Amino acid sequence: MTDILPLPPGSTVGIIGGGQLGRMLCQAAAQLGLNTLVLDPDETGPAAQICTRFIAGAYDDRQALQELADRSDVVTFEFENVPVEAIKDLQEKIPVRPNARALEISQDRLIEKTFLNEIGLSTAPFTNIESCGELEKAIAEIGTPSLLKTRRFGYDGKGQVRIDGIGAVHDAHNEIGHAPAILEAMIPFEREVSVIAVRGLYGEIVNYDVVENHHRNGILHTSTVPADISTETTEAAKMIARTLITALDYVGVLAVELFQTGSTLLVNEFAPRVHNSGHWTLDACAISQFENHIRAICGWPLGAADRHSDALMTNLIGREVDRWEALAQQPSTALHLYGKAEARPGRKMGHVTQIAPRTGSV
Amino acid sequence: MTDILPLPPGSTVGIIGGGQLGRMLCQAAAQLGLNTLVLDPDETGPAAQICTRFIAGAYDDRQALQELADRSDVVTFEFENVPVEAIKDLQEKIPVRPNARALEISQDRLIEKTFLNEIGLSTAPFTNIESCGELEKAIAEIGTPSLLKTRRFGYDGKGQVRIDGIGAVHDAHNEIGHAPAILEAMIPFEREVSVIAVRGLYGEIVNYDVVENHHRNGILHTSTVPADISTETTEAAKMIARTLITALDYVGVLAVELFQTGSTLLVNEFAPRVHNSGHWTLDACAISQFENHIRAICGWPLGAADRHSDALMTNLIGREVDRWEALAQQPSTALHLYGKAEARPGRKMGHVTQIAPRTGSV
Repeated sequence: MTDILPLPPGSTVGIIGGGQLGRMLCQAAAQLGLNTLVLDPDETGPAAQICTRFIAGAYDDRQALQELADRSDVVTFEFENVPVEAIKDLQEKIPVRPNARALEISQDRLIEKTFLNEIGLSTAPFTNIESCGELEKAIAEIGTPSLLKTRRFGYDGKGQVRIDGIGAVHDAHNEIGHAPAILEAMIPFEREVSVIAVRGLYGEIVNYDVVENHHRNGILHTSTVPADISTETTEAAKMIARTLITALDYVGVLAVELFQTGSTLLVNEFAPRVHNSGHWTLDACAISQFENHIRAICGWPLGAADRHSDALMTNLIGREVDRWEALAQQPSTALHLYGKAEARPGRKMGHVTQIAPRTGSV
Repeated sequence: MTDILPLPPGSTVGIIGGGQLGRMLCQAAAQLGLNTLVLDPDETGPAAQICTRFIAGAYDDRQALQELADRSDVVTFEFENVPVEAIKDLQEKIPVRPNARALEISQDRLIEKTFLNEIGLSTAPFTNIESCGELEKAIAEIGTPSLLKTRRFGYDGKGQVRIDGIGAVHDAHNEIGHAPAILEAMIPFEREVSVIAVRGLYGEIVNYDVVENHHRNGILHTSTVPADISTETTEAAKMIARTLITALDYVGVLAVELFQTGSTLLVNEFAPRVHNSGHWTLDACAISQFENHIRAICGWPLGAADRHSDALMTNLIGREVDRWEALAQQPSTALHLYGKAEARPGRKMGHVTQIAPRTGSV
């Protein structure tokens, strides 16, 4: 481990998690002449195939984490369900960026939304649910339709149930296994947008352009940039991201998902990591979200987040990846495949980004 | 090894040579979900750090080549001084793309220029030199200034001497160690340009835009696209590349260097591989030269060679790489470092590409 900053080329970036986000972080690090050391239980995963070195181990395996600390110059993570205790221990030994606090807040919807409100950012109304009785009471307050969401471990639409009337309360509470949860008002919105922000080691911030997201079966289907929103709303969305990333004293890439209606923006959630809705930056910007995350955590100057092209990113879920040959023929399209052997339903296998000459002044 | 074409994601591309070109081929293959297996004597080289698997061995090590054949689905090479015999042997066992013939022709300046003339492409006048006496006679014919170039193993200005008068003949012949050589007329030209062409497995061809190159100390310094030449000359340059790549029955990326004066184009040389003057395609095109080489040799559809931006690529030679931190702050600039530990003089350590909104209709 070196104390020199910025970490010079030849330094090693430790990455917890070996999925496609880890893979694309490895590619960005390699472009900058940095080595990567990935920790993941699966030796055949997307990042394991291309990292410089690999440690096979669970995310909370003390020996594996010690090895990661010993052999890296900085550590980051590619998903938000890393055990917070592991990160806290690691922070005693080596710089971990972003910090454990951002991770901890993002892991629990109740803590996350409470924090967002505390720093002045609006969310849909929500309330803590610890029992079926509390759920009944909350529905009386918040009304229906509403969403019952587990506080922890939700992703890609998992761990949430829509409630359309008071009669569905027991079934809904059963469905989430009586886990600690929140009930959230289901706010009709025009569109979901997201902002990718990056904060450097010295507090500087850059924002990528605001993206419009569409989901299918709870999983992100497409991201389009620029989003079809006004300049004022765009600036407001970026300001929300700046407020949040600063309040968290965060280093690296942070993604914020927002519900937009007219000029109203409600924060849905944030992810303390590179994000699927920022994949378009690989092909439409000189510096991608992955490269800027690596730059930030290594204390490098950030790259500008300007886009040179408009973009439409489409995820390839499960067997959709079987169309790779046709997709490879689509004009102005970059194909990204993640090296996953088995195309299970709901699994993110790759994505394509179609670029077009830049429009607008955003 | 599989016979299926196109080679599906998950297949393995074998690469002979582990330098920066091999490294960037590995990155392109990874993006497409393909694995890479690199053969190189140096286990710490640029490609070794990021390939999926690595074989340490000399380029003509029979056992290493056998292993490469056994574990790959197709084999390519990243430099033109691979022993032709090794490639010919390998071709018996596994598809090697491009073919040994293109490699063989490119390795010998006499054979190369003779071939170019035979297929109707113009070069500077040249003549075969096997002795000091022949050199004297050739100078009387071709005149001075002229260039004495070894037939084999020349690169980055190595293996060539400028001759300004008949008195310098003996020194010049000594300087190249009496190696088999050619004498070439030194034609004054306006600029050196190059064209990167790609030919797919079924004969389809795409051409990247014509690039203007500037050298320093015999090493490529900058490549600028578009080149400041007329549309007619651009089309003529592309036609030369098409003629050559077809005549060689070539699969993959081929680079052609041309001397341009007005509407006259003379072929200087070609390289049967991805090329330094095509690095700008990584940042100014949806599909780079590296990706199109991988697509071609795997029997995939080629990507269009359109550029979305203008570009200026600058090589970082030797200690120039020490400026990495300042370069990382330059707007609209992508920095690429090759993971080489030691910045020896003349060594290519990385490159930067500055992009700008696309101009012209080329």
